[in-house]
Amino acid sequence: MNRRDFMKAGLASAVALSVPEGVQAAAAAANEPKNDQKNSTLKKPAREEPFHLGMAGFTFVKFDIDTTLEFMQKLDVHYLCIKDFHLPLKSNAEQIAAFHQKLAAHGVTGYGVGPIYMRSQADVDRAFDYAQRVGVNLLVGVPNYDLLDYVETKVKQYDIRLAIHLHGPDMPDLYPDATTIWEKVKDRDPRMGMCLDIGHNLRYGADSLKDLKRYHTRVFDMHMKDVTGTTKANGSVELGRGVIDFPEYVRIMRKVKYTGSVSLEYEKNMTNPFEEIRESIGYFRGVCAAVK
Amino acid sequence: MNRRDFMKAGLASAVALSVPEGVQAAAAAANEPKNDQKNSTLKKPAREEPFHLGMAGFTFVKFDIDTTLEFMQKLDVHYLCIKDFHLPLKSNAEQIAAFHQKLAAHGVTGYGVGPIYMRSQADVDRAFDYAQRVGVNLLVGVPNYDLLDYVETKVKQYDIRLAIHLHGPDMPDLYPDATTIWEKVKDRDPRMGMCLDIGHNLRYGADSLKDLKRYHTRVFDMHMKDVTGTTKANGSVELGRGVIDFPEYVRIMRKVKYTGSVSLEYEKNMTNPFEEIRESIGYFRGVCAAVK
Repeated sequence: MNRRDFMKAGLASAVALSVPEGVQAAAAAANEPKNDQKNSTLKKPAREEPFHLGMAGFTFVKFDIDTTLEFMQKLDVHYLCIKDFHLPLKSNAEQIAAFHQKLAAHGVTGYGVGPIYMRSQADVDRAFDYAQRVGVNLLVGVPNYDLLDYVETKVKQYDIRLAIHLHGPDMPDLYPDATTIWEKVKDRDPRMGMCLDIGHNLRYGADSLKDLKRYHTRVFDMHMKDVTGTTKANGSVELGRGVIDFPEYVRIMRKVKYTGSVSLEYEKNMTNPFEEIRESIGYFRGVCAAVK
Repeated sequence: MNRRDFMKAGLASAVALSVPEGVQAAAAAANEPKNDQKNSTLKKPAREEPFHLGMAGFTFVKFDIDTTLEFMQKLDVHYLCIKDFHLPLKSNAEQIAAFHQKLAAHGVTGYGVGPIYMRSQADVDRAFDYAQRVGVNLLVGVPNYDLLDYVETKVKQYDIRLAIHLHGPDMPDLYPDATTIWEKVKDRDPRMGMCLDIGHNLRYGADSLKDLKRYHTRVFDMHMKDVTGTTKANGSVELGRGVIDFPEYVRIMRKVKYTGSVSLEYEKNMTNPFEEIRESIGYFRGVCAAVK
């Protein structure tokens, strides 16, 4: 099985496992003798979203992959951006295959790797080689500005998309916002774009939803979070408890036909985040269900 | 302090404590120097709902009141229907005052008591006496059919509303659905109505949203839950994972100006329900945020 076949097989098994319980229940209900079609309490089939909901691996920095996957299964979320603390950069082919098998057993697809910081050509080489061996075509990365020419040669060589991660006011000198990334990639290979972190971008004072509209052709991944305000002093909170307009966010993702992942990166409470992640994912799903 | 003053004071302190973190953050953000009013990422002030979100005490049958209140504080939910396992029917005035004080310290108001089953006139006497001593004007109860004349005299005597709880197919002979209750109360004192359990009602094959529209003048309380289908065999699940159309539910509550509580009664996993309750409340809030 080559890399692409492997990914296809993994994706297919993940999709087969990912039918939500509710849909199964609705299907079961449809087979019942009652005249449910006239029951206005029953919801209509859910809209198929262009994007898929995922988790940013960094959320689980304090947890091993088994705990992470057991939780994701309960959460009914099926896409994970793989961080190196779960799958080290020096992993060999066997370790990588075992890792994918473990993900598939929990109905999870590793859709990308990163974020990976790249401060030298050797870092760039290692990151692209790792992404290729892991078998993903998305590398979330943070290359130093002076490495962008070199990175571009690697993007072409490997046919792997680079999504540059922004970190808002916490790293003002290295891709603080979406506009900085856009300016640096817009005239480069179309496989160079961004992982738009809507929380960090807003905390830098930028307008994340406007940026999604403006730059969507180069948005390959997103880190979803809610934050308490628009400055560095503000932090992460459960989705819905902060200042971000999530109904409008969903409307824009649909409008621009965003086909990447929208991955929750939850950072308020990293030691015991599980209840808060459940609330956040519930909120996002409620928004998706209600936005027309 | 008489009963009504006590309830007013309790309510005021609960309201003062109940400003969601997000709103505080938005207010803080509004004081910042940035021109946030033009930032399309920021949500508009939340709509004021006619109803209030609560928790049905039965959800916490396996937990003491301290655990319950600590969790409700994290959940940012401020209304609780008091069950007798948290405040026994034989509690004296001091115990009741201490209980209310504990609730207030967590920003929670006990908005009613019950469900309480009433199988004799003595049960009815005890239930109404308890509700009066607790200082609520809502008794969620299940009186045997042949006690309804007697119950009506008590409703008038105490000026306490009775919300009859329905239990769907699990109790087919005692208020299985909303229509049964409606037929039994519609010609009685207007303070006699129902606690509409939208899950049990649906599991009986009834149309819960249609029933809310038809009977809303007699709906004083609701038990909110999602279920996997429309028969007795179906059970509870996290909100959003079942078959109920929650966006339509919220639209109808707004349309009929439902001013009672909509209280989550979570029954899927009563031993360790906390993550699932967080997801459910998140889902409901996401729906409320997105329904126009």
